[in-house]
Amino acid sequence: MSDTDKRFLALALSLGRRGQGNTWPNPAVGCVIVRDGRIVGRGWTAPGGRPHAEPQALAQAGPLARGATAYVSLEPCAHHGQTPPCAEALIAAGITRVVAPLADTDPRVSGRGFEILRAAGVEVSTGLLAEQAAHDHAGFFLRAGQQTRPWLTLKLASSFDGRIATATGESQWITAPPARRMVHALRARHDAVMVGAGTARVDDPSLTVRDMGVTRQPLRIVISRRLDLPLSGQLARTANEVPVWICHGPNTDPSLTSAWTGLGARLIPCALNGRQVDPTSALHELGRLGLTRIFCEGGSTLAASLLHADLVDELIGFTAGLAIGAEGLPAIGALGLAHLPEAPRFALSETRALGPDIMHRWLRVPA
Amino acid sequence: MSDTDKRFLALALSLGRRGQGNTWPNPAVGCVIVRDGRIVGRGWTAPGGRPHAEPQALAQAGPLARGATAYVSLEPCAHHGQTPPCAEALIAAGITRVVAPLADTDPRVSGRGFEILRAAGVEVSTGLLAEQAAHDHAGFFLRAGQQTRPWLTLKLASSFDGRIATATGESQWITAPPARRMVHALRARHDAVMVGAGTARVDDPSLTVRDMGVTRQPLRIVISRRLDLPLSGQLARTANEVPVWICHGPNTDPSLTSAWTGLGARLIPCALNGRQVDPTSALHELGRLGLTRIFCEGGSTLAASLLHADLVDELIGFTAGLAIGAEGLPAIGALGLAHLPEAPRFALSETRALGPDIMHRWLRVPA
Repeated sequence: MSDTDKRFLALALSLGRRGQGNTWPNPAVGCVIVRDGRIVGRGWTAPGGRPHAEPQALAQAGPLARGATAYVSLEPCAHHGQTPPCAEALIAAGITRVVAPLADTDPRVSGRGFEILRAAGVEVSTGLLAEQAAHDHAGFFLRAGQQTRPWLTLKLASSFDGRIATATGESQWITAPPARRMVHALRARHDAVMVGAGTARVDDPSLTVRDMGVTRQPLRIVISRRLDLPLSGQLARTANEVPVWICHGPNTDPSLTSAWTGLGARLIPCALNGRQVDPTSALHELGRLGLTRIFCEGGSTLAASLLHADLVDELIGFTAGLAIGAEGLPAIGALGLAHLPEAPRFALSETRALGPDIMHRWLRVPA
Repeated sequence: MSDTDKRFLALALSLGRRGQGNTWPNPAVGCVIVRDGRIVGRGWTAPGGRPHAEPQALAQAGPLARGATAYVSLEPCAHHGQTPPCAEALIAAGITRVVAPLADTDPRVSGRGFEILRAAGVEVSTGLLAEQAAHDHAGFFLRAGQQTRPWLTLKLASSFDGRIATATGESQWITAPPARRMVHALRARHDAVMVGAGTARVDDPSLTVRDMGVTRQPLRIVISRRLDLPLSGQLARTANEVPVWICHGPNTDPSLTSAWTGLGARLIPCALNGRQVDPTSALHELGRLGLTRIFCEGGSTLAASLLHADLVDELIGFTAGLAIGAEGLPAIGALGLAHLPEAPRFALSETRALGPDIMHRWLRVPA
């Protein structure tokens, strides 16, 4: 494999990421067809998950696919679902070499895509950019794997002393427009945006993606044990336009159940853990319903509950240049740590200025 | 002025910064002598403030100074103190051009250094890199100006939720060795390191610069209303080696006064503000005693007190990739903010990764 391979495969990965948030329960895959050093076809998984990336790229390439190399961000599928397997489509089009970073973990594919290709005489190269690809498809793999849950990104936007509001609840605005715009871009790259019941009540957020030119909004999810959310709030008013899913506990008030069902919300019963909705149960249910990537925007109780249950895969902090002081609302609620070594740890992946604020991204360190 | 001027002046500024922490009450100045595009002399203010940068650079240049240009990070001094004025030394050596970013604000100099040079026929260029120079000399200027206080840098080393210890006080270690090493480098660039009484009691810090090859330690300052600090702690045991200054309130216990005086500490009586040592009074006293740059390392009560009094000129945050939760000790104590717009604001100057942690620097936004 060469630098050229790396460049084209990186392009395929980057095309694949365009679909993030739009393809669940399918992975967001990208494909580039190259013949004699020229790109003759490009494709990425369409909204809703179909068509896949490969047939779109092959359609662009047409007869030029014959003898060409296909760079694909994930192993081509091998199973007959709603469409014929991509591995067979690549063979039929005359592709003679496939470069892909890694195998799909879906048991219906898992190496069989590569086998079909090799059996047909197609040269298959794997391993290049595998780490980046594993990160891009992490939500899809987590859901398909033993944890059967979506990837969870936790956003924290706070003062530099870690406060998300003053003692009286003022939080508009701690961060500046560039950070808030980035939050909208991040929402768009996730299947769903999630908040706790307290945040839904206090902030009355719409949780939609605005001013980014998106045509498909992520779902809105609220974790609310009792379903006691404002029936005239933004989420209630717009539940018919952009789906609202509510993860709740047992024995909710039947009038609230029917009110939210009537508004068009999907109610998802979950187990309790103490007095709260069990976050592991909630994420498992959301994975079962097909979600692969969730963007959680707090508040502090939900953030603490997710961290405590070791469910936060990525943490994205936005820190503003102001101090609110110890009376302010903390970004993360009580964690019940006995000793410092028990604190959930994250590895830095990026820090940079974003207007007057900083953005810092951290990835979960497996225990 | 040319790119060449900018390059040599930047070098003079950078030499000047080498003296930071070592030259109080004098400014830390750098000087480069250039003849025919070649550097023939370099100098920076010696530890203790003398000799000044210019005579050292001139001594290196020797007869090559005749007809040369002197790049100086601050206006050469004009007053006869313990040494003859640098402006006259430059003239006597035959320097024909002086490039300096800005005038000294000391009323004994303030433009007179430039006047003396011009009167002797020396060409004087000012204004280049003035912003950087104003930042480098900010402590010297603040002390000499109307505020008569040192520059104050506040360090915060915390978890990403802004906690400096667990509920039980565990704080070793939140940040990793690269961040801790940077803290030692920052200590070395300040005249003194300061902590509150609580931190002195709980952490028993030595506050010295270690493993950086420094020969001159910054002073150690504790703000302690009652002088009730451990008489067998690290500061007490080493007060004869590296000075310890204690800013205290009125009516302290005479036995504590004599104990600390006996250990070699310098006691600095300050006014109270409510139940605490008034931070404005303390900084004024420390400025009167000659300090130009102080590095405060907390704890949360002192940090809040300094922020509330609008005395924090620079804030340096070290953020680690771990969550401690809301029971943890906050980096900044209560600020008593009524509304978000009253929060003290800082402008980002830098953010970067430092080992597994991030460092972010912010400068005070004048109200």
